[in-house]
Amino acid sequence: MVNEAPKPLHNAMNTWEQRAAERQNTLTKPPGSLGRLEHLANRICAIQQTLTPNVDGAAILVFAADHGVCEEGVNPFPQSVTRQMVQNFLNGGAAINALARVVDADLTIIDVGVIGPPISDPRLLSHRIREGTHNFCKTWAMSQEEANAAIEVGRSCARQAITLGASVIGIGEMGIGNTTTASALCAALTGRHPELICGRGTGCDEAGLLRKQDAVRRALALHTQTQHQPAELLARLGGFEIAAMCGVSLEAAQQRCAILTDGFISTAAAAIATRINAAVRDFLIASHRSLEPGHQAFLDELGLEPLLDLQMRLGEGTGAALAIPIVRAAVAAFTSMATFSSAGVSEAP
Amino acid sequence: MVNEAPKPLHNAMNTWEQRAAERQNTLTKPPGSLGRLEHLANRICAIQQTLTPNVDGAAILVFAADHGVCEEGVNPFPQSVTRQMVQNFLNGGAAINALARVVDADLTIIDVGVIGPPISDPRLLSHRIREGTHNFCKTWAMSQEEANAAIEVGRSCARQAITLGASVIGIGEMGIGNTTTASALCAALTGRHPELICGRGTGCDEAGLLRKQDAVRRALALHTQTQHQPAELLARLGGFEIAAMCGVSLEAAQQRCAILTDGFISTAAAAIATRINAAVRDFLIASHRSLEPGHQAFLDELGLEPLLDLQMRLGEGTGAALAIPIVRAAVAAFTSMATFSSAGVSEAP
Repeated sequence: MVNEAPKPLHNAMNTWEQRAAERQNTLTKPPGSLGRLEHLANRICAIQQTLTPNVDGAAILVFAADHGVCEEGVNPFPQSVTRQMVQNFLNGGAAINALARVVDADLTIIDVGVIGPPISDPRLLSHRIREGTHNFCKTWAMSQEEANAAIEVGRSCARQAITLGASVIGIGEMGIGNTTTASALCAALTGRHPELICGRGTGCDEAGLLRKQDAVRRALALHTQTQHQPAELLARLGGFEIAAMCGVSLEAAQQRCAILTDGFISTAAAAIATRINAAVRDFLIASHRSLEPGHQAFLDELGLEPLLDLQMRLGEGTGAALAIPIVRAAVAAFTSMATFSSAGVSEAP
Repeated sequence: MVNEAPKPLHNAMNTWEQRAAERQNTLTKPPGSLGRLEHLANRICAIQQTLTPNVDGAAILVFAADHGVCEEGVNPFPQSVTRQMVQNFLNGGAAINALARVVDADLTIIDVGVIGPPISDPRLLSHRIREGTHNFCKTWAMSQEEANAAIEVGRSCARQAITLGASVIGIGEMGIGNTTTASALCAALTGRHPELICGRGTGCDEAGLLRKQDAVRRALALHTQTQHQPAELLARLGGFEIAAMCGVSLEAAQQRCAILTDGFISTAAAAIATRINAAVRDFLIASHRSLEPGHQAFLDELGLEPLLDLQMRLGEGTGAALAIPIVRAAVAAFTSMATFSSAGVSEAP
């Protein structure tokens, strides 16, 4: 399942984008004047294989898990904050709750491996793999079976969101320490040096940053002596929430549903999904550019240019949420604007 | 009325922004992690002088008028397109109709000087100053009385929008030839050379661009031999829709309502408003960066950094519309997020 062959979608994508671009030029605006909104609408047409796309239904899936690498002192917040923030999400008090409401998106919180006993709350989807990953500076973060199980959790969440009407899925996460995890994956996948990738995450100081870089260097020394398949890299260096978001990306693409990446962590997950199935790339929309330096490395690898650049670095799917109205606006202009001929508006010669 | 003295709002603004920034640091997110959303919310607090701001009500005011400078051959579209597009707005077929619906903003179209007989349509506000301006390469675009009347139209439209519940007003326009008008105002106000300001507008070719630059140069030679008051510059080189948007800016600021600028033309209007009353600056939020080179000149002059950069160049208020959910998201996060203490979330040491 995980290693299915890439599907040759590119030619079909291009055909739909071309047809959409031709229609764009008939709409009552100077050609190209809606800029990136036009490309975005054309891409949605290609994803949905239609010239009457619909993006009314939007889901944001936020996966939470803990990270064994925290024992290396890479994060100023205590690990218990992952669990506290899950409770905050459930109570509606986090940034993503506010943003999901404003953009009219369905928000689902999924526990895939938060430390402590299971959180009993009917508003939470509980698909716990284990209480946090192992410290990847010392061993594999998770077994291959656990990685596959987390991917399958993501897949099933995507299937459910699509069944409930989502045509755009934003992926978000919560996990103290997970910028270190994403940095390790980024260094392993892109070959860039840890110093160029590691950022201050949610706010570590200079000493914390050096510990983070050191942890990533040691992880690379332990895990990347030979080339590994992407699913194995995910098991060695990943997190349960990253594996789950990877699963969302694989499944959403398979079901021709657009995926909105959020920041560094979710884009790491999307990048691994494209390594497993290259066709996933065509279904990714980069919502925003995070302040984390590693995020740009993944965006470069994926050839994605974010819609927003608001100096955010929170995660939780907050950037993905902000991009939803932009996607809807792009599609609304495409589907509801009059043509020059229908409106009796003169075209430029 | 027009030349009222600047009000010393800055100190009061700073106090509210400071109080809002202090509250931001108590909310359940790493300090500063919402980036520009935090500054935006703090600014809205200052504008509304409250720590419980509300931006549910949003209005987009689109002013349409024609431009005498079109006889210089500066635009590839016939002038009749202004009128045709007004009809398209009324029929709901333009880009701004689609975008206003998506972002749940009240859209009002105002005729302040479209060529031809009055457009009889109950959905249109008709406040026509005259059938288009004069060619400012030869004479004043409008009399000072006409400029003042157009400003007053904008003021009354802003008052009405605020009465109906708007706490954010986006300003937009339609007027074939008005990038040339905005270019002339930009050159006169900022002192930059026409070659650095004039762009291709809605799509003029190289010859059209040269005619545009030449028209602006001749306008400057005729009108800027001596320093003029901003309201006189507006009458000499402006357009009715620009004067009206200037009036919206003056009135909205006076009523402590946030103003979302759109592209080059609307930012020209906002820039003139700040020359008339410097306090207007604090109430301006730049929605997006247009592809028109003159737009950046105004943004520099105003010290504004746009929220969006999507390579758009349409006008109509489309950029302003896209920024509305971002403003709402910023305020929603500020007003509805839990604090560290209320949510029982640990802070970083």
